[in-house]
Amino acid sequence: MSATEFSTDLRDLRFVLFEQLKLQERYANIEKYEDFDEEMLTAILQEAEKFATGVIAPINKDADRIGCVHHPDATVTTPPGFKEAYQALSDAGWLGMAASPDFGGMGLPLPMAISIGEMYTGACMAFTIYSGLTRSAASLLATWAPEEMTELYVPKMLSGEWLGTMCLTENAAGSDVPNCRTKAVPVEGEDRTYHLEGEKIFISGGEHDLGENIIHLVLARVPGAPAGYKGISIFVVPKYMVGSDGSLGARNGVQVVGIEEKMGIHGSATCTMAFGGGSTPCVGYRLGEEGEGLKIMFHMMNEARLSVGLQGLAGASAAYNNAVAYAKDRIQGRAVEKLLDSSAESVAIVCHPDVRRMLMTMKVYTETMRSFLLTTATRIDIAHNTDDAAEAERLMSIVELYTPIAKAHCSDIGFEVTRIAVQVYGGYGYIGEYPVEQLLRDTKIASIYEGTNGIQALDLLGRKMRAKDGQVFMAWMQETQVDLQQARDAGLGDMADALDKGVNTLGACAMHLAGLGMQGQLKGALLQASPFLTLFGTVLLGVHALRQAVVAKAKLAENAGDKFYAGKVRNAEFYMANILPQAVALSKGIRSGDESCLDDVLFS
Amino acid sequence: MSATEFSTDLRDLRFVLFEQLKLQERYANIEKYEDFDEEMLTAILQEAEKFATGVIAPINKDADRIGCVHHPDATVTTPPGFKEAYQALSDAGWLGMAASPDFGGMGLPLPMAISIGEMYTGACMAFTIYSGLTRSAASLLATWAPEEMTELYVPKMLSGEWLGTMCLTENAAGSDVPNCRTKAVPVEGEDRTYHLEGEKIFISGGEHDLGENIIHLVLARVPGAPAGYKGISIFVVPKYMVGSDGSLGARNGVQVVGIEEKMGIHGSATCTMAFGGGSTPCVGYRLGEEGEGLKIMFHMMNEARLSVGLQGLAGASAAYNNAVAYAKDRIQGRAVEKLLDSSAESVAIVCHPDVRRMLMTMKVYTETMRSFLLTTATRIDIAHNTDDAAEAERLMSIVELYTPIAKAHCSDIGFEVTRIAVQVYGGYGYIGEYPVEQLLRDTKIASIYEGTNGIQALDLLGRKMRAKDGQVFMAWMQETQVDLQQARDAGLGDMADALDKGVNTLGACAMHLAGLGMQGQLKGALLQASPFLTLFGTVLLGVHALRQAVVAKAKLAENAGDKFYAGKVRNAEFYMANILPQAVALSKGIRSGDESCLDDVLFS
Repeated sequence: MSATEFSTDLRDLRFVLFEQLKLQERYANIEKYEDFDEEMLTAILQEAEKFATGVIAPINKDADRIGCVHHPDATVTTPPGFKEAYQALSDAGWLGMAASPDFGGMGLPLPMAISIGEMYTGACMAFTIYSGLTRSAASLLATWAPEEMTELYVPKMLSGEWLGTMCLTENAAGSDVPNCRTKAVPVEGEDRTYHLEGEKIFISGGEHDLGENIIHLVLARVPGAPAGYKGISIFVVPKYMVGSDGSLGARNGVQVVGIEEKMGIHGSATCTMAFGGGSTPCVGYRLGEEGEGLKIMFHMMNEARLSVGLQGLAGASAAYNNAVAYAKDRIQGRAVEKLLDSSAESVAIVCHPDVRRMLMTMKVYTETMRSFLLTTATRIDIAHNTDDAAEAERLMSIVELYTPIAKAHCSDIGFEVTRIAVQVYGGYGYIGEYPVEQLLRDTKIASIYEGTNGIQALDLLGRKMRAKDGQVFMAWMQETQVDLQQARDAGLGDMADALDKGVNTLGACAMHLAGLGMQGQLKGALLQASPFLTLFGTVLLGVHALRQAVVAKAKLAENAGDKFYAGKVRNAEFYMANILPQAVALSKGIRSGDESCLDDVLFS
Repeated sequence: MSATEFSTDLRDLRFVLFEQLKLQERYANIEKYEDFDEEMLTAILQEAEKFATGVIAPINKDADRIGCVHHPDATVTTPPGFKEAYQALSDAGWLGMAASPDFGGMGLPLPMAISIGEMYTGACMAFTIYSGLTRSAASLLATWAPEEMTELYVPKMLSGEWLGTMCLTENAAGSDVPNCRTKAVPVEGEDRTYHLEGEKIFISGGEHDLGENIIHLVLARVPGAPAGYKGISIFVVPKYMVGSDGSLGARNGVQVVGIEEKMGIHGSATCTMAFGGGSTPCVGYRLGEEGEGLKIMFHMMNEARLSVGLQGLAGASAAYNNAVAYAKDRIQGRAVEKLLDSSAESVAIVCHPDVRRMLMTMKVYTETMRSFLLTTATRIDIAHNTDDAAEAERLMSIVELYTPIAKAHCSDIGFEVTRIAVQVYGGYGYIGEYPVEQLLRDTKIASIYEGTNGIQALDLLGRKMRAKDGQVFMAWMQETQVDLQQARDAGLGDMADALDKGVNTLGACAMHLAGLGMQGQLKGALLQASPFLTLFGTVLLGVHALRQAVVAKAKLAENAGDKFYAGKVRNAEFYMANILPQAVALSKGIRSGDESCLDDVLFS
């Protein structure tokens, strides 16, 4: 492992999947997964690791330095190596890893897809965005498109021939998606067929050279549609018209008009797209009924938001692995024991307490996020594959609660971990010769797109916490008692007590904010939405630190002295002592009743 | 004010300088400042504001997009407009604003120079680095160079003809400066003259096209010098040799061999410099005695570190002003009162509680950092201009204590404010069309150079807290009691009580860490150095929030309803309720005794 090369953490992925979540046991009863035993899943992870380090990581630097180029003829070229890597991705079957074998997919369980996604995103986030969006678009089509369209489009998207996009954002409709103004006028005499007109911005992969066709999923309004979200419909807009045999026809009236210069993910073409308005009309096919656009789009929201949280984790993991390698390599300064001996040999900076504190913060954040996201993915997977409808609903209700936290907290913490990595590298952290400044810039986007983190906080407080009159949250509180009890049984009572206080603090804050809401003090409550999400995330990652420590402690009994397991127990100790106390600080603010910033004297 | 244009906060600068610090009164007794009354100083600030917005800010975008270019003939060109702006800077006298009139300077008090520095740095940080280093180098020469050299060099540096650098860092001597390996061999028969050989990295302004000559101040070792800091001497190395009349002679043997690709400050040429080793020897003149290099270089450390803290403030201020303008402009989403009314008009995002929380966080951080840095600058200034040696020593001892906090906390918080600004802008925050992503990238360097923030924390805990057996810190604790009493007298008792607890928490942590030190548990103590610095900074900015509220409350009695003053009281309320509680969280970690991350099982 070197301080400039990408590396994965396969040991930890395997720990979470097979020792903590015990997928091999859970999947034994699910027919479609019955062939996936631990050995096979491990072999797949090892192949994915090879692909991440051997094929994807090598294109990451050019992705950043060269980026995408928008040409005068309304084409966009991706950075060197992207096309070949995309081809390799589909050739090796990774594009369809989680898709059904019916469409030529590998049918991997979701936690496996998330694990592999972490590796690929960490290797080159900009590159992985194209395949992620294509998978999402294909999955949406598979659910909502007419059968003949699904059969034509989906296999081509999963084979890498065609790619996909999601076109939601407009200049005046960013966080406020229902304010969308793109128009869709029905074409007389043609079923589900419309002409679209409007402009969308921030469209990832709106135009590029990775495949033969691009399938845009576009939100627009039909004439006379009501204001707000009920007036939004969703349309399939191919770049090239598609014949009934899947052959490509004429160019459709959709075109890139510019790409953004961004802080990071330079290899991902962020396009402004013009629909219609030129000499060629822009033809779109409606999915679902008129007015169902947001319902259909939001159908895949949980997984999309989980994927963005995953980008936070992936950036964190890459940054952490790099920082550890750097800290072990870099000789600078004397050991604490010999601080005053100017003739003492210099040591690797990994020996310095301040550096170890930074590395440990990165380690525990990265590993607890990984545990949290893979646990959430497993819940989704089990829910989708059980015959027990009540259990499925219970699992999914907690997934819904977790979704804004997974998206926002993991993207915030992911960014924070990359920031710490820059500090570990010192001056070298600020220069492009080393990888961490790019990781910081790339990772920043995750706190913004797919609903800003502020929007996630409103979703958590205003919608998810209130789900089923708060019963979902209460169920979560009870669930954590199981973790606490297991920790106490394992002799980790002190940590369990600390976390118990954190959980209670979270509960008290939830009650306080619910009380404000019931008294009609909505502004005061919403003011605390973001701190509340951070509080929840802080406690939740603490739960995962403890849960992993319990598993590791049991393993240590059989593997005395094993550094990996011992490190997991250290993780939890560090988290409870140094990070969890932030919960107290947040709760003080949340419950302070302070509304100073709402005063009209400000920002006027 | 627009969301894309740079703007300053002159109202707040004037509040700090004239209402809070009352410079006009303090300076009435200092002979060299007696001409500077409030009216004159205000006029100078207004001129500086015009210069910042009219001359410097316009070059900032190209500074980032085009940056510096290193050519094959070992020259470096700065971005478009830099040369003209640098000329304008010197023509208008700003280059010598704080320098003595003996050298053609304006002789402005230090807090004025810091105020103007904030504006210029916020307008274009990369540009301002050249002048800052030149001023520092000139100031060092004025103190340490032989008279004839001072008279030749300093006026040319303050007139913009020549520029200056500081050459400390080497590949194996970053944070560990005393490990410097550049050699300086005495030239026989010539007084103070040496031939240098070695390579320095990360040299800001090492080569460029802004002036006729560049004066490098270089750390190197003479043959037989002892190991460590006592073996370091300092040398003046001009790019072109200087005749006794100040005329330029032959090229000296110093040359740029590369510039860094960086995350930000692209307009600042970060050079790798080769001294000697070619056909032309590299001639250097020693300042002071052999072995005095670090003493001489560190002579200006306080101001240099204050300047880096100022970069944090400047980035924060620019980001905050931009974000407020954007939040007032950007229409998106419905008002909280009409959340459920889908026909309601959209409002400016400044109305949304979550956005107001972000803006308020930025506001109070920016304004308290400004208060802190200008207060510190005033102390330095008074200390340098009083006949009362005991008072001067008292003032400077607190300045020494503050210095690592000013550098590290203000650079960390400055970065955090730019991060929040990106969130306020949402998707637009991530693209280069708007200014905040550049501010984030530019500001990041401040936490790294001039001693990383980790090094600052070690300086605070290991050196400054122990100064005079802890008496300096104790004196600071007592000083805050004056602020608390004034706040109670002003009817701000609740806030004073909250802050009092914070101060006591800080004191308890200081005692705890001192105790560890005395017991020889050095590693455990150093582990908490960074959290301790953050804790100190958190409490200190709270003191400034409260102090400003006291001043503003008195003003409100005469100016009922004044929004600016009312906003200052709100600042303090917000800080005590939402930010100060972090002190509790930090203190829990600091006093936890947790040393989990020191375990050898980790990072091995």
